Amino acid sequence: METVHGEHIAVGSEILLGQLLNAHARTVSLAFAEEGFFLFHHVAVGDNLERIAHVLRQAAARSNVIILTGGLGPTEDDLTRDALAAVLGRELKLVPEAVAEIESFFALRGRPMPEVNRKQAMLIEEGEFLPNPNGTAPGQYVFGDGVHYFLLPGPPLEMQPMLKNHVMPRLRKLFPGASSLVSRTLHFCGIGESTVNEQVMDLLALTNPTVAPLASEGEMMLRITASADNKESATQQIAPIEAQLRAQFAPYIYGADNDSLPSVVGDRLRARKETLAAAESCTGGLLSSMITAVPGASEYFGGGVVSYDNSVKSGVLGVSKETLATYGAVSEETAREMALGVRKVCGTTYGVSITGIAGPDGGTELKPVGLVYIGLADSSVCNVFKLQLRGSREQIRLRAAKQLLWRLWGMLG
Amino acid sequence: METVHGEHIAVGSEILLGQLLNAHARTVSLAFAEEGFFLFHHVAVGDNLERIAHVLRQAAARSNVIILTGGLGPTEDDLTRDALAAVLGRELKLVPEAVAEIESFFALRGRPMPEVNRKQAMLIEEGEFLPNPNGTAPGQYVFGDGVHYFLLPGPPLEMQPMLKNHVMPRLRKLFPGASSLVSRTLHFCGIGESTVNEQVMDLLALTNPTVAPLASEGEMMLRITASADNKESATQQIAPIEAQLRAQFAPYIYGADNDSLPSVVGDRLRARKETLAAAESCTGGLLSSMITAVPGASEYFGGGVVSYDNSVKSGVLGVSKETLATYGAVSEETAREMALGVRKVCGTTYGVSITGIAGPDGGTELKPVGLVYIGLADSSVCNVFKLQLRGSREQIRLRAAKQLLWRLWGMLG
Repeated sequence: METVHGEHIAVGSEILLGQLLNAHARTVSLAFAEEGFFLFHHVAVGDNLERIAHVLRQAAARSNVIILTGGLGPTEDDLTRDALAAVLGRELKLVPEAVAEIESFFALRGRPMPEVNRKQAMLIEEGEFLPNPNGTAPGQYVFGDGVHYFLLPGPPLEMQPMLKNHVMPRLRKLFPGASSLVSRTLHFCGIGESTVNEQVMDLLALTNPTVAPLASEGEMMLRITASADNKESATQQIAPIEAQLRAQFAPYIYGADNDSLPSVVGDRLRARKETLAAAESCTGGLLSSMITAVPGASEYFGGGVVSYDNSVKSGVLGVSKETLATYGAVSEETAREMALGVRKVCGTTYGVSITGIAGPDGGTELKPVGLVYIGLADSSVCNVFKLQLRGSREQIRLRAAKQLLWRLWGMLG
Repeated sequence: METVHGEHIAVGSEILLGQLLNAHARTVSLAFAEEGFFLFHHVAVGDNLERIAHVLRQAAARSNVIILTGGLGPTEDDLTRDALAAVLGRELKLVPEAVAEIESFFALRGRPMPEVNRKQAMLIEEGEFLPNPNGTAPGQYVFGDGVHYFLLPGPPLEMQPMLKNHVMPRLRKLFPGASSLVSRTLHFCGIGESTVNEQVMDLLALTNPTVAPLASEGEMMLRITASADNKESATQQIAPIEAQLRAQFAPYIYGADNDSLPSVVGDRLRARKETLAAAESCTGGLLSSMITAVPGASEYFGGGVVSYDNSVKSGVLGVSKETLATYGAVSEETAREMALGVRKVCGTTYGVSITGIAGPDGGTELKPVGLVYIGLADSSVCNVFKLQLRGSREQIRLRAAKQLLWRLWGMLG
């Protein structure tokens, strides 16, 4: 049975100039992955007839489903229709019904249709229009030389519903028996990527399911992907590998798929009906911001204090001036008093703290850039951990916040 | 004279599966556009030796500068080195100095180098390593069959500085005559993109210099690009257009090129030798985090309070319980007392505040999602602005923070 070999081609010079992020490539990939359709290539090309035709020919030689986005507007620069017609050796024909639809789109907005927009009613021979309720450019479906082409407009709010409502249902009909691809992503923190990889060499060598490591800032993921006749059987192939990994790396696997460190910490706090407050120095609000980016965080997050200046550490959090004078702002003692202080000031179950040197300046031999203390306090105890982080200011801040969230997640387990 | 025909190839199945947005394509495009180098193709391909080699051969046939990102990790899945070596018919050789560097990277973290990481010290014959201070995977520069290849690691915080510090300077040397293009980007806030575009229709129609709008979250940019025989003359062509725009949009243009809202606010505070504190409710630390992301922010940022829970608003910031009961947490009155309170508590020149409903839940007919109050207080007065923002939770939080920074920048002018 024929399977999908998909390809996405984004057309538009603004993408090649860096003015626009090619988010459609991801949108199409996610839709394909959801269905278990393979998508092997993303391409982006500018508004140039020859170059669009060139990448179309290359795509047709390796793919049987080609999704094109962009280049369906009314201007001289909109060349997707012309390029595909040229590649297939077909004519473009004006469709009067399509002109009428575009005219009515303008009429609803109280304007006459500009003459240039007639171009959007030009259909590739033997093609079929795909309706676009949110704009003037209809899409097109064309089959030629064994390849299914879908032409979609560039604006995301027009393209996305057309992909969902017209392209994917048609592909499901065209490829009913497509093998099902199911993925499961496990999130790790507190352990190095290379350490994990070394311990799962055997899994990384598998061919179905496959296990692939994904690096991320301050954490990593392993993605298990199984291909089978149907979703159920693919899912069943994933289960034993996930179980093995969870047994092997229990303290480090904090979540799966769409989980994030702030979301799993939030889940545990919510389940325990407990609350949290954060005192931040070098992360300057980043930790609180990550926690509150999760919808509903107000259920368990009381608040935080960004104690950048020492006067705020002592004045608001109650860190003793003697501690600051004796041990300095970046010290185990200050981290402890910050965590205890913010817990008291905000009246929460837990108080956490971060103090360190994010750089690029401010480091000394004794306290180098990247030295960070994190504190976790509950009603009875405050544990402080000393970290030596590497990287840029941005990396150190992000890694410090993630390390704290991971340890907090463990403490709440 | 030879000109750059650039191409970017992103390697990684996570991109084709839609798990990762291919942001590197845009990063590379922006860097090339900045230099006046042409970049005609973006390609993304999965972790498959044959397919990587296939797109490399196609790229080599049309491009003379190829930037590859990803696939330089230590695992079986990391195949970029192998694919390029195969395409060029060259060997991969272990470089002892590179092993030593990777070992020292691990040693600094108090760990031995896992055996798998030796793979990252494999250099393509006649190639050259590009240093990566932020990770274990060095980059590589290889020249072969008329094509300049640059292999960069996938993690953005490793890739970006290598592109800037190693790839672009080398390309400038390799293609010295290509840089007759000069760009100047003006940053706007507080005015809608379509409003700006409508008022500069004549400029957008220019062919040299060109003026192009760039959308961004909660702000926008206009990029003026001039092409000439030399940089000086290109720069001279930009000046009158910049002057015209600055005259037309003075209150909205907060900066140029690498400026950001937090950086220009910081510049003005530093120049005035004044200090700032922030009280945040719905932004939950995001504003403070943006301010403190700028190196040296401790010079002017005293600290902040994330007053998520009302008890923190009253207990720490001194917002009166009567105000909260009468007007609610999201109100002009609460915003005012938060700004005044954080200024007092942190002992700074200015106090600013944000309180609002970021959604997706929590909105009512009277106080819908997106309703945000921002307060700006100095020693004599506190101005509060009411905003009705649109978008997702993330967008509302970011736009609220930017609106506040823009108004603060204006106030400090």
